Amino acid sequence: MKEYKVGIIGFGTVGAGVAENLLNNGDVIAKRTGVRPVLAGIADLDITTDRGVKIPDGILTTDAAKVINESDIVVELVGGTTIAKKFILTALNAGKSVVTANKALLAHYGEELFAAAEKSGADICYEASVAGGIPIIKSLREGLVSNRINKIFGIMNGTCNYILTRMEREGADFAAVLADAQKLGYAEANPSLDIDGIDTAHKTAILAALAYGRWFGIDAVYTEGIRELELADIICADEMGYRIKLLGIIKNDNGKVQMRVHPTLIPKDALLANINDVFNGVMVEGDTVGQTLFYGRGAGRQATASAVVADITDAALNLANNCRRRVPGFVPGEQFDRQITEDEVVSRYYLRLQVKDCPGVIAQVTQILASRSISISSLIQHETRGKDVVSLVLLTHPAKEKEIRAALSEIAVLSVNSSPVKLLRIEDI
Amino acid sequence: MKEYKVGIIGFGTVGAGVAENLLNNGDVIAKRTGVRPVLAGIADLDITTDRGVKIPDGILTTDAAKVINESDIVVELVGGTTIAKKFILTALNAGKSVVTANKALLAHYGEELFAAAEKSGADICYEASVAGGIPIIKSLREGLVSNRINKIFGIMNGTCNYILTRMEREGADFAAVLADAQKLGYAEANPSLDIDGIDTAHKTAILAALAYGRWFGIDAVYTEGIRELELADIICADEMGYRIKLLGIIKNDNGKVQMRVHPTLIPKDALLANINDVFNGVMVEGDTVGQTLFYGRGAGRQATASAVVADITDAALNLANNCRRRVPGFVPGEQFDRQITEDEVVSRYYLRLQVKDCPGVIAQVTQILASRSISISSLIQHETRGKDVVSLVLLTHPAKEKEIRAALSEIAVLSVNSSPVKLLRIEDI
Repeated sequence: MKEYKVGIIGFGTVGAGVAENLLNNGDVIAKRTGVRPVLAGIADLDITTDRGVKIPDGILTTDAAKVINESDIVVELVGGTTIAKKFILTALNAGKSVVTANKALLAHYGEELFAAAEKSGADICYEASVAGGIPIIKSLREGLVSNRINKIFGIMNGTCNYILTRMEREGADFAAVLADAQKLGYAEANPSLDIDGIDTAHKTAILAALAYGRWFGIDAVYTEGIRELELADIICADEMGYRIKLLGIIKNDNGKVQMRVHPTLIPKDALLANINDVFNGVMVEGDTVGQTLFYGRGAGRQATASAVVADITDAALNLANNCRRRVPGFVPGEQFDRQITEDEVVSRYYLRLQVKDCPGVIAQVTQILASRSISISSLIQHETRGKDVVSLVLLTHPAKEKEIRAALSEIAVLSVNSSPVKLLRIEDI
Repeated sequence: MKEYKVGIIGFGTVGAGVAENLLNNGDVIAKRTGVRPVLAGIADLDITTDRGVKIPDGILTTDAAKVINESDIVVELVGGTTIAKKFILTALNAGKSVVTANKALLAHYGEELFAAAEKSGADICYEASVAGGIPIIKSLREGLVSNRINKIFGIMNGTCNYILTRMEREGADFAAVLADAQKLGYAEANPSLDIDGIDTAHKTAILAALAYGRWFGIDAVYTEGIRELELADIICADEMGYRIKLLGIIKNDNGKVQMRVHPTLIPKDALLANINDVFNGVMVEGDTVGQTLFYGRGAGRQATASAVVADITDAALNLANNCRRRVPGFVPGEQFDRQITEDEVVSRYYLRLQVKDCPGVIAQVTQILASRSISISSLIQHETRGKDVVSLVLLTHPAKEKEIRAALSEIAVLSVNSSPVKLLRIEDI
């Protein structure tokens, strides 16, 4: 049995889960694959706090360089984009196989890291960086390798999905659910990375790179979070047959790549609409396979460890078979090297207006839309029951983003309009 | 760019799809992986019928031996368990990499084929044998390699799922929907392999072998199909909050393996219950990752081709990197070498009785169940409106199969009972 030394840098939640998994399930991995990854070192600044896993003597150290030096496979679980990058580059330059779960680092510095891996002939694996325990990277790169990718829709942030699920189920406001989620540990004290869509954008950038063979980077992803989402929108969407999810959206748009993250109305009977709580789901549509969907836990100690240890095993199998970089970390293929500008994106839209309850309002609004050839697919205005401002909700047929933006500017200055128009996008999946 | 010759044996629906995919998407595969699988030969007895794909000159032949001889990677798409086996053994013995979609062959002769592959050091890949285009084999063996598998629930037969979906949606009888499915080409003229659960049992045997490291074979799978399912059961299940799906069920049952195929009531809000029409879905629960689900098309020319060509690419990557059998076709690990007998399986049950509408009926039936410590979780009897026979539907808490069987024998001879009791099983997933 070939054994390989695994060194973990960063003994936080996921680090502890990875150590635990290697210790508990190393025999299963060995039986299944014929190689055994062995926990050889864990480096962290804090090696005294109990992480709920019994680590054998001599494994824990504060000396990251020593762990990198003495390992065959280095697992970066420090997080962030500074010291983590340094550790990975040190390991790669020393020819070590690297496993990371660091989506922010990959989204920002992927090209640099992959170049370093290529130069030294080392493996860099990152299954856990997208959708936690779901083997979406392996499925996309290997299982669906024969497909040209038409579309990817991903619910890839458990915190946002948890908040949206509770808002819908409980009829609760965003702020109240966020506060409770923070209390329960489902949201960070500073929740911006999650709720502003940034984390989802990181993952979207990674999947887009794999799907289309070019590292577009994080700035290429149009990003809106769920912070501005109101309960009223969830209720109106529900009435019209839709549920709102924060989606990472990647599309082949006539040979240009579309990358967006925003709250999205999707039909309630779509499988993706039924992925709730902290769970993640990624729908991939290939030209050959058609629609596929991958579902599971997107975060957490154990689920993330499952993906990290799968990567460790992959790296160990490559070492054992002398075939490092059999499937390289990233292959620039440049199937599509151009991105569609946000202005040119065609989508269906949900508009919620607060308008004065007086004659001619619907006529004025719909006339503005009609003048830009934006067609309305459905419209709801409920009776006001004594209020002088009323919600008018419209769903449109497909229209260009720049047309809808221009229409909204015109609507904004109408005298009947009493507050900013709420704009959301619809995907019929 | 390293190129590998691919020879297809069997130019049927899937064979044509594989040829088409290699011709259309070979450049994408090459860009992504650095290797190019090249269509080199197709053998079939009929090489004149148009299959809707333009095959270059010199590729089609009736000489299977020649195709095997001249290929690096041999793709068996003949089907059946006789001549297909011969072709695969010939190819393996000649050291060729083999790709097959033949679940029946694997379920019956897997051990023999894997032994031949091991002996010659060749790859044998079979992603397309289970759940068509869904990369479930790769996900289970590689993506979830660090998990002890607790449970697998699979909707793995598109024909059955199509029939069940239409019965529920249209309130139609089994026979009528089957006849229409045959007319539309969704069911075979002889539908037994699908509707009697045999095809699902083949796939269940394959997944159980991968999950638990032992080739139990097809006879080890307790199998019931959907032929006896009545619309009344679908309606009653719906009223009680359940949907009926034909599931392949694999469980770690306290260190023994449970393998069953039968129509199963699952809660309507479970993701698996929302997989409809011809689609497949496989839920895998691992000890580390928790619940995961994989969804997509389980059959058809293109979806199956997607999986076959993924396997071809895997085999080509192994050839290019001189690492054949990096992940062997099957590794006997014998994590669990024992199977639980059907008698000892614990399940929840659905019972539908046709009883006379007279005093004491419910008392007699429930007394029999109580005497065997079978507890009732819910019960429905609707008003009869003039009929003298009435449906009594019971759901039980968990009980042993042998206890429920014994209880049914006692109920069968009650004078109030007017026809055989309908027994179905429930999984709360």
